Amino acid sequence: MKSFDKSLEIETEEEGNAQKQENNSEASHNVTPLLLDSWKPYKGTRANVKERLLKLRDCLESVCGIQWYGFATLGILTAVLSFLMDFSVAKLLQAHLWLYGKLEGHILLQFLCWTLYPACICAFASSFSHNICPFSTGSGVPEVRTMLSGIEVPHYLSLTNMFTKFLGLTCTLAAGSTVFLGKVGPFVHLSTMLGAYLDRLCRLIQGKKKDAGTEMMVVAAAVGVASCFGAPVSGVLFSVEVMSSHFALRHYCPCFFSAACGGLTFHLLSAWSRDGETLQALFKTNFPTATPFFPLEILLFALLGLLCGAGSRFYLFCHRWILKFTKTNRVFLTMLTTEKGLYSGLVVFFLALLTFPHSAGQYLASKWTTKQLLTSLLDSRQWSSQSHNASVRLELDSLEWSSSGAPIFLSLAFFLLMKEMWMLVLACTLPLPAGYFMPVFVYGLAVQSRLRSSELKKALEIKKGSLILNHIFCGNFCLVGAAAFSGAVTHTLSPALLAVELTGQVTHAVPALLSTLLANALARSRNGLSFYDGLSISKKLPHLPSLKKKPLSNSFFKKQTLVITEIRNLQKAAGPAEVQSAVSNSSEAQIPVVDSHESQVFLGCVLRSELLLFLHRCQTQRIEGRLDEVCSIRPNSVVVSPHNTVQEAYNMLSVAPAQTIFVADRGKLVGQITWSEVRTEICGF
Amino acid sequence: MKSFDKSLEIETEEEGNAQKQENNSEASHNVTPLLLDSWKPYKGTRANVKERLLKLRDCLESVCGIQWYGFATLGILTAVLSFLMDFSVAKLLQAHLWLYGKLEGHILLQFLCWTLYPACICAFASSFSHNICPFSTGSGVPEVRTMLSGIEVPHYLSLTNMFTKFLGLTCTLAAGSTVFLGKVGPFVHLSTMLGAYLDRLCRLIQGKKKDAGTEMMVVAAAVGVASCFGAPVSGVLFSVEVMSSHFALRHYCPCFFSAACGGLTFHLLSAWSRDGETLQALFKTNFPTATPFFPLEILLFALLGLLCGAGSRFYLFCHRWILKFTKTNRVFLTMLTTEKGLYSGLVVFFLALLTFPHSAGQYLASKWTTKQLLTSLLDSRQWSSQSHNASVRLELDSLEWSSSGAPIFLSLAFFLLMKEMWMLVLACTLPLPAGYFMPVFVYGLAVQSRLRSSELKKALEIKKGSLILNHIFCGNFCLVGAAAFSGAVTHTLSPALLAVELTGQVTHAVPALLSTLLANALARSRNGLSFYDGLSISKKLPHLPSLKKKPLSNSFFKKQTLVITEIRNLQKAAGPAEVQSAVSNSSEAQIPVVDSHESQVFLGCVLRSELLLFLHRCQTQRIEGRLDEVCSIRPNSVVVSPHNTVQEAYNMLSVAPAQTIFVADRGKLVGQITWSEVRTEICGF
Repeated sequence: MKSFDKSLEIETEEEGNAQKQENNSEASHNVTPLLLDSWKPYKGTRANVKERLLKLRDCLESVCGIQWYGFATLGILTAVLSFLMDFSVAKLLQAHLWLYGKLEGHILLQFLCWTLYPACICAFASSFSHNICPFSTGSGVPEVRTMLSGIEVPHYLSLTNMFTKFLGLTCTLAAGSTVFLGKVGPFVHLSTMLGAYLDRLCRLIQGKKKDAGTEMMVVAAAVGVASCFGAPVSGVLFSVEVMSSHFALRHYCPCFFSAACGGLTFHLLSAWSRDGETLQALFKTNFPTATPFFPLEILLFALLGLLCGAGSRFYLFCHRWILKFTKTNRVFLTMLTTEKGLYSGLVVFFLALLTFPHSAGQYLASKWTTKQLLTSLLDSRQWSSQSHNASVRLELDSLEWSSSGAPIFLSLAFFLLMKEMWMLVLACTLPLPAGYFMPVFVYGLAVQSRLRSSELKKALEIKKGSLILNHIFCGNFCLVGAAAFSGAVTHTLSPALLAVELTGQVTHAVPALLSTLLANALARSRNGLSFYDGLSISKKLPHLPSLKKKPLSNSFFKKQTLVITEIRNLQKAAGPAEVQSAVSNSSEAQIPVVDSHESQVFLGCVLRSELLLFLHRCQTQRIEGRLDEVCSIRPNSVVVSPHNTVQEAYNMLSVAPAQTIFVADRGKLVGQITWSEVRTEICGF
Repeated sequence: MKSFDKSLEIETEEEGNAQKQENNSEASHNVTPLLLDSWKPYKGTRANVKERLLKLRDCLESVCGIQWYGFATLGILTAVLSFLMDFSVAKLLQAHLWLYGKLEGHILLQFLCWTLYPACICAFASSFSHNICPFSTGSGVPEVRTMLSGIEVPHYLSLTNMFTKFLGLTCTLAAGSTVFLGKVGPFVHLSTMLGAYLDRLCRLIQGKKKDAGTEMMVVAAAVGVASCFGAPVSGVLFSVEVMSSHFALRHYCPCFFSAACGGLTFHLLSAWSRDGETLQALFKTNFPTATPFFPLEILLFALLGLLCGAGSRFYLFCHRWILKFTKTNRVFLTMLTTEKGLYSGLVVFFLALLTFPHSAGQYLASKWTTKQLLTSLLDSRQWSSQSHNASVRLELDSLEWSSSGAPIFLSLAFFLLMKEMWMLVLACTLPLPAGYFMPVFVYGLAVQSRLRSSELKKALEIKKGSLILNHIFCGNFCLVGAAAFSGAVTHTLSPALLAVELTGQVTHAVPALLSTLLANALARSRNGLSFYDGLSISKKLPHLPSLKKKPLSNSFFKKQTLVITEIRNLQKAAGPAEVQSAVSNSSEAQIPVVDSHESQVFLGCVLRSELLLFLHRCQTQRIEGRLDEVCSIRPNSVVVSPHNTVQEAYNMLSVAPAQTIFVADRGKLVGQITWSEVRTEICGF
C-alpha cells in the first residue's frame, strides 16, 4: 500500500511545477501494476487516479513524445546528482581541513588526521562497493562503450549499482588531493544507469513493450559529460566519439536537448548555491581578450601537441604496465581479489604519507582540491615574475604552491614526477568507483606550466626577444596542453572543446584543436591503444573497435565464422501434422519454409499467426490443406552465407528491416541469426 | 612543356615551407602523365624529376598518409579562397561608396550610381554563370546533400563550375546591402569541388584507382563552414548534420583536422591583413563577462526560441510560395529560362531603388555591409537609452541606423518588414551563386533587436521591476535569436555553436542551444520541410531524407520495388562452351552460378579470372571439365529478395562487404543490384 499512497500523494500535489512529467512517470509506474490486481482496496480512488494519469499522459503527449520528457528528466536528474556530489564532497573536504587546522601544533595528531581520514574513507568505499555491487568499481566508460556496440553487460545498469557508484564516488572524491581521481567516467556510467531506468519508465507509459535500442544510452553518454561540467557541446562530441563506428543522426537532437538541459541545470544550481550570482564559465580565467595569442605561437602550440602525444604514450605504457603487474603479481592479485578494503586503505595511507604537508607534501600543493589546482594553473600571470619578484609575492598567498620557501619551479617539477606520474598510476589500481580523465587533464596542465615557465622561456628569450614572450600568456599553454594530453590519452578530440567550454575562451578553440589533433595523431600511430581500450582489454570486455585496432585479434576475428542457431523449418507441401509439430516446437514469430526437406532450398517465412489460422481451419473444416496453398509465404528480406564474418553479420543486422537474418549455404537453409547470436559470438571471443 | 617547366620550377624551390605537400601534389600530377609519353624531349631531366618526386612522396608518406596532406591542403586553400573573396568584395564595396560619396550634391548621378552599379554587377554575374556553367547558381547545399547520399550529380564538381561560382559569388557579394545574400552555402559547394579535385590528386599520387567514396565530401562540408567564418567546431557539426542518416566515425578526425587547418588559416590571414593584430573572434562583442545573464532570463530565451520557430515557419512558407510562383507564373518562367541576366538586372535595380539612401533606404541602413550590421546588432548597449537620451546619442554616430531624424525603432521595424521579409525572398529568386544562411542569421538578429527594445521591455517593466531588466543585455538576445531563427529555418543545431564561435561568448552556448532546440522542435513539427528540403524539391533533386519526411512520397517510395538488372548466369555443370559464352557476354568481375538452368537455385559466384583459367586449361589440356569440379564457387555474401524496397537495398549496399548484392526470389536467382541501379532508381523517382 505504501507505493500506492505515495502515488496518490504525488497525484494530489500541484502539477504545474517543472518536474511534472517526472513525478507523473513515477506515479503511473507505481499505479499501473497495482490496478491490474482487482482484489486490492480503494477501487474507486484508484480508478480515479488512473483516469487522471491517463489524461495527463495524453496531455503531455499532445505537446511532444513521452521520450522527450525522459530526455529532459535525464539531463536534469544527472545534473542534480552531479551538484549534490560536488556539494557533499566540498563539505567533507572542508571538514578534513578544518580538523587538520585545529590540530596545529600537534604534529602526530595532524599526521594521523591527514593519513587516516582518506585511508578510512577509501577503505570504506572499497569494501562497500565490493560487497554491494562489485561491478561499480572503476570508471565505467569501457563498459558503456561495450554496451553501445550492442552487447549486453549483465547487472551493469541496476539501481543497486547506481547507488553504490554514487556513494563510492563521493568517498573517493572526498579523499581529496591524496587520491586525486576524477568524476567524469563514473558520471557517464551513472547517467547511463539513470537513462536505462527512465527509458523503461517511458516505454511503460507509452505502453510499448519492444526493446529500446541504444538511443537512451547514446544520449546518456552525452549527458554524463555535460552535467559533470555544464559543457553540453563537448558532451555531445564525446557521445559521437564513444560510438563504435557510426553515429545515427536521429540521436543528434535528443543528445543536444538532454545535454543542454543537464548543462543548464548544473549552471543554475551552481549559480544559486553561490547566492544569486549569474551564470558563468566553470573556471574563471583572466586571459586578456584583446590579444589572445600571436600567429607565431601557433607553431609552439603544434610543438606542444607533439610533446603531449609523446607524453601520453609514456603514460599509457606505465598504465598498461601496472594493470598487467596487478594481474600477474601474486601479492597484488591476492590483495585485490580477497582484501579490497585493506588494499585500498593501505595504498591510500601510503599516498597520504607522501602528501603529508610536513613531509614531501609541501612540494605537492596537497592541501588543494582539483578545482583550486585548475584555477591556479590556468592563471595567466606569469609565475616567473612572481617568484623572482618579492613584491608581487603577496598575490600568491591565497593560492600558495609551496608552503616552504622552495622555489616554485622545483615544487612544480616535484609535483609532476611524484604525484602525477607514478602516484596517479598507482591510484588507478584502486578498486574504487573513480574517473581517470580529470587527473590526466590536470596533469596536462601541470606539464605545460612546467614547460612554459623555465625552458621554453629561456629558449625564446634568446631567439625572439621579449616582444612575443610577453604575450605568451601562461594560461593559454596550460589550456591547450591539458586538452592535447587528455585527448591523446583517451584518443578523443572532445577535450579540446571541453577545455574551451570550461574556461570560456573560444579564441583558443583553434589552437587547442590543432594541438589535440597532433597529439592524437602521435598517440594513435602504430595501432596505439587508448586508455579505455587498455582498460577494456584488461577487464576482458568484448569491444569491437579496440579489437579491430589490434592486428592479431583482427585477423583472428575476421577468420572466425558464425555459429548459427539451427532452426525448425517447414517444407512447402507440409500438411497440418507437420505444421502442428513445428508450431509446438518453435517459439519464433515466423517459421522458415523450404522447398522440400531433401533439397532444403529456402523459400521464405510464414507468420506463426497464419500457421495457427491454417491449423484452426484444418480442424474445423476437416480439410487436408497444403501449406503453400493456404498460407502466404513471405519472401525473406536478407540472406547471408555462413562464410560471412561476425562483423558483417553485425553490420547487416544494424540496417536490416527485420530483427532476424537467415543463413543459407548455396540456396539451402542453414540457420538464422538474431542479435542474441551475434552478441554471444562477440562476447565469447 | 609549360606544365613541365612549371613542375621543375616548383621542384627546385625550397621545400621547407608549409605548403610543400600541396606543390608536390600538383607537380606530380603534371609530371606523371608526361612521363608516359616516351617520345617527348628532355628524357633524362624528366626521369630525374620523377625520381625526386617519388622520393618526396615516400618521404611524405613516412610521416602520414597522403590523404592527410590532402585534408590540410583543402582546409588551407578554402580559407585562402574565402579570404581572397572577402578582400575583393571589400574593395569593390569601398569603390562603390567612394564613387557615391564623390557625387554628393548631384542627386541624379548619385541615384544612377547607387542603382546601376549593383544591377550591372548582378546582371553580369547572372549571364556569366548562365553561359559558362548553369549549375553554379544558387546555394549548392541541396546538391551537396544529394551527393553525400551517394547519388552522382553530373557536372557538379567540375573546375569550370568552381571558377564560375567563385566569380559569380564575388559579384553577388559586391552588390552589397542591396542584394544582401551570404556566402556560406556557396563555400560549402566550393570546398566540395576543391575536395573532389584534391581527392583525385591524392589517389593519383597513391596510385589507387578505386572510387573514393564520400570521405572527402564529408570533410569538405565541414571545411566550407569552418573556412567561411574561422569556426571549426560548428563546421564539423554542420558536416554531421548534413549527412542523411549516419555519420561514420572514421570521418571524424579528418573533418576536425581539415576544419582546424581552414579555421586557422582564415584567422591568420585576417590577422595579418589587419597589420599584425592577434587572433580574435570574428565579431567583437562587449558583453560584460562578470554577469553574462541571470537564471530567470532562461525563460525569456526559451520564449524567444518558440517565437523564432513560429517566425521560421512563416518565412519558409513565403519562400516556398515564391519558389512555386516563379515556377508557375508565365512571365517569371520566361524571364528565368531565357533572359537570366536581364531578370537579375531588373530585380536588383528595383531593390536598389528601394534601398537608395535618399528614399526608403534611409530607414534600411543601406550603406552598411553585413559585417557592420552584425557588429551593430550585437552591440550590448541598450538602444532605448540612446534614443531616449540625447546625450549618449553621440556614441551612435559612428554606426548610425537612420540617416534621417526618425526614431531608431521605426527604422528597425521598417527594416524588418521591407528588407528582410519580402526583399530577401525576392532576392532568393535571383539566378546567382549566393548563400541564404547569413541573411537569415542577420534577420534573426534584427527580429530580436526589435523584440528586445520595445515590447519586451515594457512588458517586463511592469512585471519585474528594473533589477533584471538592467541585465537583459540586448546583445545576448540578438545572439540567441539569430541562432534560433537560422537553426529553425535550416533545421540544424550548428548555428547555435556558430553564433558562439563568431562572437566568442561561450557562456551563451547553453541558452543559444536551448533556444535553437525549441525553435527546431516547432519548425520540424508536422513534417515541416527545411529551407534546403524546399530547394531540393523545387530543383527536383533526388534526396532521401527530404522525401522520407514527406508522407505521400514516402508511402510511394516504400511500395516501389527494385528494377533489377538481369544477368548472365552459369549452371553448376557448365562445360567450356557455356563458360566461353558467359565470359564473352558479360563484363562483370564475378559471374553467378546456379544449380541448373531449370531450377535456377542460386549457389554463389565464380571469379572471372578463374573462368578464364578454366577455359585456358580446357584448351591446352583438351579435357572436358565441369565448372564445379575445377573452379571454386564462392558463396555470395548477401542476398536480398525482390520485395525489398530501394531504401533497404541502399542500406544493405552501404554496409555490404562487396559492391554487388544478388537478388533471389525463393532461392531462385533473379538479378543483381549495384550502386548504379540504386542511384538510377532514386534519381528516376
